[in-house]
Amino acid sequence: MIAAVVYGPDGVTEYDDLATARDATGTTWVRVSDADPGELDTVAETFGIHSLVVEDVRNEVRAKTQPYDDYAFTLVKTVELARGDQSFEEEILAEAVGICVGEDWVVSLSVPPDDPVDRVWDAVRRGDSRILDRGPDFTAYRIVDMIVDEYFTVLDDLETDIEAIEEAVTESTDIGTLEDINALRRDLLAFRKVAWPCREAVGVLARGGPTQVRDETEKYYRDVYDHLVQVVDLTETYRDLTTGTRDIYLNTLSQSTNEVMKVLTVIATIFLPLTFVAGVYGMNFAGSPYNMPELTWRYGYPAALVAMGAIAGGMLVYFKRKEYL
Amino acid sequence: MIAAVVYGPDGVTEYDDLATARDATGTTWVRVSDADPGELDTVAETFGIHSLVVEDVRNEVRAKTQPYDDYAFTLVKTVELARGDQSFEEEILAEAVGICVGEDWVVSLSVPPDDPVDRVWDAVRRGDSRILDRGPDFTAYRIVDMIVDEYFTVLDDLETDIEAIEEAVTESTDIGTLEDINALRRDLLAFRKVAWPCREAVGVLARGGPTQVRDETEKYYRDVYDHLVQVVDLTETYRDLTTGTRDIYLNTLSQSTNEVMKVLTVIATIFLPLTFVAGVYGMNFAGSPYNMPELTWRYGYPAALVAMGAIAGGMLVYFKRKEYL
Amino acid sequence: MIAAVVYGPDGVTEYDDLATARDATGTTWVRVSDADPGELDTVAETFGIHSLVVEDVRNEVRAKTQPYDDYAFTLVKTVELARGDQSFEEEILAEAVGICVGEDWVVSLSVPPDDPVDRVWDAVRRGDSRILDRGPDFTAYRIVDMIVDEYFTVLDDLETDIEAIEEAVTESTDIGTLEDINALRRDLLAFRKVAWPCREAVGVLARGGPTQVRDETEKYYRDVYDHLVQVVDLTETYRDLTTGTRDIYLNTLSQSTNEVMKVLTVIATIFLPLTFVAGVYGMNFAGSPYNMPELTWRYGYPAALVAMGAIAGGMLVYFKRKEYL
Amino acid sequence: MIAAVVYGPDGVTEYDDLATARDATGTTWVRVSDADPGELDTVAETFGIHSLVVEDVRNEVRAKTQPYDDYAFTLVKTVELARGDQSFEEEILAEAVGICVGEDWVVSLSVPPDDPVDRVWDAVRRGDSRILDRGPDFTAYRIVDMIVDEYFTVLDDLETDIEAIEEAVTESTDIGTLEDINALRRDLLAFRKVAWPCREAVGVLARGGPTQVRDETEKYYRDVYDHLVQVVDLTETYRDLTTGTRDIYLNTLSQSTNEVMKVLTVIATIFLPLTFVAGVYGMNFAGSPYNMPELTWRYGYPAALVAMGAIAGGMLVYFKRKEYL
Amino acid sequence: MIAAVVYGPDGVTEYDDLATARDATGTTWVRVSDADPGELDTVAETFGIHSLVVEDVRNEVRAKTQPYDDYAFTLVKTVELARGDQSFEEEILAEAVGICVGEDWVVSLSVPPDDPVDRVWDAVRRGDSRILDRGPDFTAYRIVDMIVDEYFTVLDDLETDIEAIEEAVTESTDIGTLEDINALRRDLLAFRKVAWPCREAVGVLARGGPTQVRDETEKYYRDVYDHLVQVVDLTETYRDLTTGTRDIYLNTLSQSTNEVMKVLTVIATIFLPLTFVAGVYGMNFAGSPYNMPELTWRYGYPAALVAMGAIAGGMLVYFKRKEYL
Repeated sequence: MIAAVVYGPDGVTEYDDLATARDATGTTWVRVSDADPGELDTVAETFGIHSLVVEDVRNEVRAKTQPYDDYAFTLVKTVELARGDQSFEEEILAEAVGICVGEDWVVSLSVPPDDPVDRVWDAVRRGDSRILDRGPDFTAYRIVDMIVDEYFTVLDDLETDIEAIEEAVTESTDIGTLEDINALRRDLLAFRKVAWPCREAVGVLARGGPTQVRDETEKYYRDVYDHLVQVVDLTETYRDLTTGTRDIYLNTLSQSTNEVMKVLTVIATIFLPLTFVAGVYGMNFAGSPYNMPELTWRYGYPAALVAMGAIAGGMLVYFKRKEYL
Repeated sequence: MIAAVVYGPDGVTEYDDLATARDATGTTWVRVSDADPGELDTVAETFGIHSLVVEDVRNEVRAKTQPYDDYAFTLVKTVELARGDQSFEEEILAEAVGICVGEDWVVSLSVPPDDPVDRVWDAVRRGDSRILDRGPDFTAYRIVDMIVDEYFTVLDDLETDIEAIEEAVTESTDIGTLEDINALRRDLLAFRKVAWPCREAVGVLARGGPTQVRDETEKYYRDVYDHLVQVVDLTETYRDLTTGTRDIYLNTLSQSTNEVMKVLTVIATIFLPLTFVAGVYGMNFAGSPYNMPELTWRYGYPAALVAMGAIAGGMLVYFKRKEYL
Repeated sequence: MIAAVVYGPDGVTEYDDLATARDATGTTWVRVSDADPGELDTVAETFGIHSLVVEDVRNEVRAKTQPYDDYAFTLVKTVELARGDQSFEEEILAEAVGICVGEDWVVSLSVPPDDPVDRVWDAVRRGDSRILDRGPDFTAYRIVDMIVDEYFTVLDDLETDIEAIEEAVTESTDIGTLEDINALRRDLLAFRKVAWPCREAVGVLARGGPTQVRDETEKYYRDVYDHLVQVVDLTETYRDLTTGTRDIYLNTLSQSTNEVMKVLTVIATIFLPLTFVAGVYGMNFAGSPYNMPELTWRYGYPAALVAMGAIAGGMLVYFKRKEYL
Repeated sequence: MIAAVVYGPDGVTEYDDLATARDATGTTWVRVSDADPGELDTVAETFGIHSLVVEDVRNEVRAKTQPYDDYAFTLVKTVELARGDQSFEEEILAEAVGICVGEDWVVSLSVPPDDPVDRVWDAVRRGDSRILDRGPDFTAYRIVDMIVDEYFTVLDDLETDIEAIEEAVTESTDIGTLEDINALRRDLLAFRKVAWPCREAVGVLARGGPTQVRDETEKYYRDVYDHLVQVVDLTETYRDLTTGTRDIYLNTLSQSTNEVMKVLTVIATIFLPLTFVAGVYGMNFAGSPYNMPELTWRYGYPAALVAMGAIAGGMLVYFKRKEYL
Repeated sequence: MIAAVVYGPDGVTEYDDLATARDATGTTWVRVSDADPGELDTVAETFGIHSLVVEDVRNEVRAKTQPYDDYAFTLVKTVELARGDQSFEEEILAEAVGICVGEDWVVSLSVPPDDPVDRVWDAVRRGDSRILDRGPDFTAYRIVDMIVDEYFTVLDDLETDIEAIEEAVTESTDIGTLEDINALRRDLLAFRKVAWPCREAVGVLARGGPTQVRDETEKYYRDVYDHLVQVVDLTETYRDLTTGTRDIYLNTLSQSTNEVMKVLTVIATIFLPLTFVAGVYGMNFAGSPYNMPELTWRYGYPAALVAMGAIAGGMLVYFKRKEYL
């Protein structure tokens, strides 16, 4: 899909022909999205955009800002959290949007649909005066700003997941929990890999690299830059949180093993001596006054039971003191 | 709340009208705190403050210093440790205070109440001569200094918590202790995320970035900068301490498992052989001189008991040597 | 093997004599590959290439770019994944290709066969117009580009291995799995050690270090540089993934120990008390109304069995609650 | 304590009055140590030293070098290892010494006693010609050098501790050992936190930052800088060593658990089957030729004993092969 | 030992007197090795070498390059692997060699014997034309190159050790293996601490810091620099390998504990129920048709044995499924 509008303080006009749009007075915005292979080339040719720019958009390379002679090229990534059927079976989807800012034109290029750009496009067509009369570099800023705003939505979703896992982790030691934590860490890593170069690309614009970005607009890019610094900070904080969660998970498991051991030890150390005593009085020695005279004592059996009770009681007191119980 | 004072070597006057205060001779300080949405805009308009500054204060972004044409904008974060009902259920609360320093005015902006600013405000209204005649940049320094002083209070509280946990950790292997350690680490992380950009923001002022900060005042900012370096250092030391504490916790648990195992092993290895011996003499072989003649020996039973005692004693000596007991 | 071609917009000529090729009009490309010791020296002498360049190619040092007076020397590494007989018994093989770019000539030097160069060589000999008329620096770019493209193939193979291990890890706790993970991490490390200096070497070309690289070609090198940044990024992501996999492996083992312990505990704590009860009624006390009157009660035996059943049932309910079952 | 000397190639004179000392010909050194609050201020006023310098010395901030208009201010930390009653109950004590180097004077400021400065002070008063005629910056160098020399003494003590722990660790798995290791790591961390900024402070002097340090003296500061680089290196090596020691400690514990388990397993797997066999022949089946005819076989009992011996022997052979014994 | 030669394109002459050698035409090389305290000072005085240089050589400080007015001073470290009696009881020995390069002279200083310098010295005395006519900076390069070549020999030895440990680790879980791994890691650390500053020192020469190093020679230093980068890379790779080996060691231990547990569990869960059954039929209930009628059933005993066999068989099938066997 290729669409073109020309706008300025006086209003907005839509154009069908690219060349006419390019030559019209005002800011020209040509938007290519959900593009088939040829469309990118057509637009690039009309505006004298280098073939490497088209390649970068097509290959969805890392975010970057590259000044060319007649225009500044910025590539940023939109981010989406694609959820699968199962909990935490989700993935970070990143797609490239390329933006070329010329003297009086801006071209946005994207092979997949570029939903976040939609809102800026609609604002321009509605005649939003905050955009119309501020030139192509400000329009580019709005697009980048809208894309970065989505980052926070994704981060919010990831934070919800982290909290869900934090609760799950103290409740069960299911191996699946560790896999969920790892999946989440992987998402945060993937997200960070997208946000980091994006930060650098916007940083170049904020520090006034390309001449097509006017001083006035630089201030706005600094704002986006601050947002991206915050985004990268947050991903790192989240990773730290998941590390803590993993520690708790692993420890819960050790704790569980420890507790199981204690149960076993208590039971075994109480019943092994008792069974031994019972075994002794189950022996068949006989035929001599030295051979098990206890067996025929009047209170032999009650005495044996009392002795067993004493052994068991002593053990319980011992374990109570050792805090096994 | 909006309040305005004008001061100089001659004294302090409070003003109701912002424009009059701005134009009066001397240093004008307009303080906006606990602000409702409109108030920030009103003040910004009067002093020609950029709308991005107001946005930054509203969104409570990371600390930063940004020179504008007519004023220098610094945003720092106040820090508070909000304690919950349960032990260690506490959180780092950070709130933004924006300070714009112009030629002969200073504007402090804050959406929540800005308690640390209160003390500087009172000092000015009391006519504290150490502030009155040193211009707006020195007033701004006092505000920043007061905010950073609070950091040390929070760090002291966190240190007390660390010490409490260090004692708790050697006493019990309760899973809650690990969660407390993690909560503390999270607080330290949150604190560091606040202090780090603050350090950078004050660093810019200390290196004499904005022209509104005079050389004389820079020296004072260098002092604050040194404090912030110390703050960041301390948070890192504290994190290292909690790492050590966690290691001891996890190890105490392993040690406990090891000890439980030893108890079990000692009991089992003593009583299993004894029970076996008792079992042997409980067998019912008979009807042949080869079938359990021991049972009718004169001292069969005492001999069996002695044998069992010898086995138990041997085991105890063995475990003594192995240091299981 | 030494081969020489001279080409330009007009076409391609192959030469046997190096000196003639060097002096012919157009871009001269001399390719040395699968070289014996003397061949490198012969070519170096003809084109005035420093003996250190030849040494670097021979010793297969780290990738680098080194500008000399009359030519720019770049050394890059080809990468191949050599698989052994057993699964994951594979190794990263890296071989050096040196490229010297002069005013109107390019020399490629390699001691082992340089397969990725083959494709560029064929394209030139086929008269590929995208290469012929763009000078020696563009030809060098095509060689480097082709070599870096192979990196992605190797990364794809490694990714396949990672996925295979991720599946294996949840299925068994075989010690071999950990060795496979370590082998994979070693491969990723080796790969990164090759790619990192390569990135630096291409970075120098992309930033326009040597004068032999024209501005037009720099843009293409920037493209290769972006690829290499992506390559290094991917190796780091992959390493992070293997770390997660190792965690899951180690945890699966702990989980297994924990489960084994539970089985033992359940069995032992059910049967030890039962065996004790059986032992008690196997004792031989007699000859007094107090000595084991239960033995002759009418329902003594059924009562004992019921009591044992009750004990076993109680234990099972207890373990059910503790989630051991 | 305030003391003042003036010296030069001709000799040394002690002065009581600060102002007279300041104005005398030669290098004036005023030494303030073990100071009460007022003394620092008195000296600062006499030599025109900024109040922030006094604050830094009083608050014992991080080491630093700060050039002022008329003098260069360097703050370094003396280090001492304070040992407690128990082994490894020791702490790093760091105290600040501030040094201001002017055109022809040097002022050393310290709130606690400054023992390492003593030696330089004595050398000057003794008329040590290597110091007298080299100006105030060389005197300052000697003070810094003497302080840094103490660092090596402390490092030697820490190394002795590390070696003591390394021996202790393989002998016992006492939980106290881990606490000792952690205490040592904490000391190393504290030491590093002192040495690191000191390195930076001396680095500024070595690179010839302040004009008061002459080129000739810079070379000597470079020497001190090299020492400090070595000090920081050593603390890092020591930390690495303690990490290794901790690993061995934790592993010794695992090894111990593993060994305990083996003992239990060997005993249990030998005696459980034997006890079972004895139990079988303790059963009371009777009244039928199929019910336990073994009991009345002529060699029934010896056969049972032999069978039991065979079982025990088989188990022992099995465990020998498994290397449990 | 002090020795002096003067050489140039025309040949080599040995001199006894330092001053005569210094003033002779050609390149003068004075070599001090295995030196007693006075020798270093004598030579330093003759060539106007600063006393700090002599101090650095004596104290064997970190490698470094320091330009002085009339000469460039480089200190590098020779490395040797001193093996003890026991396996892996080895240590990295590093010794300092200082090299001063003047206009037409080079002085090499070393307190211990400087074996790697020997080979260069012999080459010069043999009249090796590749050294004679290239000036003092090239001679210095040859010395440095020879010393760095030894690094690779040491690395080869360490690699052999790593491979030996990697094999040992899967065979036994002897605590000694972990100590060996730690010793090896310590050696690698020590080696890296030597090689890293050496890399920096040679880097300064390669980037053409001191004026005494001619452009032509810089290229050769770049070569040595590349070698040192490779050396540092290798030590890091080796450290990573030992980390992997340690993981496998620790895991082998966990695996062993897990396996021991399984053996115990299998034996206990098979024999505990069987012993219980035997215990039941060893009870002495009698005197009522409800009391153990099984004991007198015709096939009571065979039935009991079959039941026991069924229990044991069921358990074995269960463990087979759980993969405990």
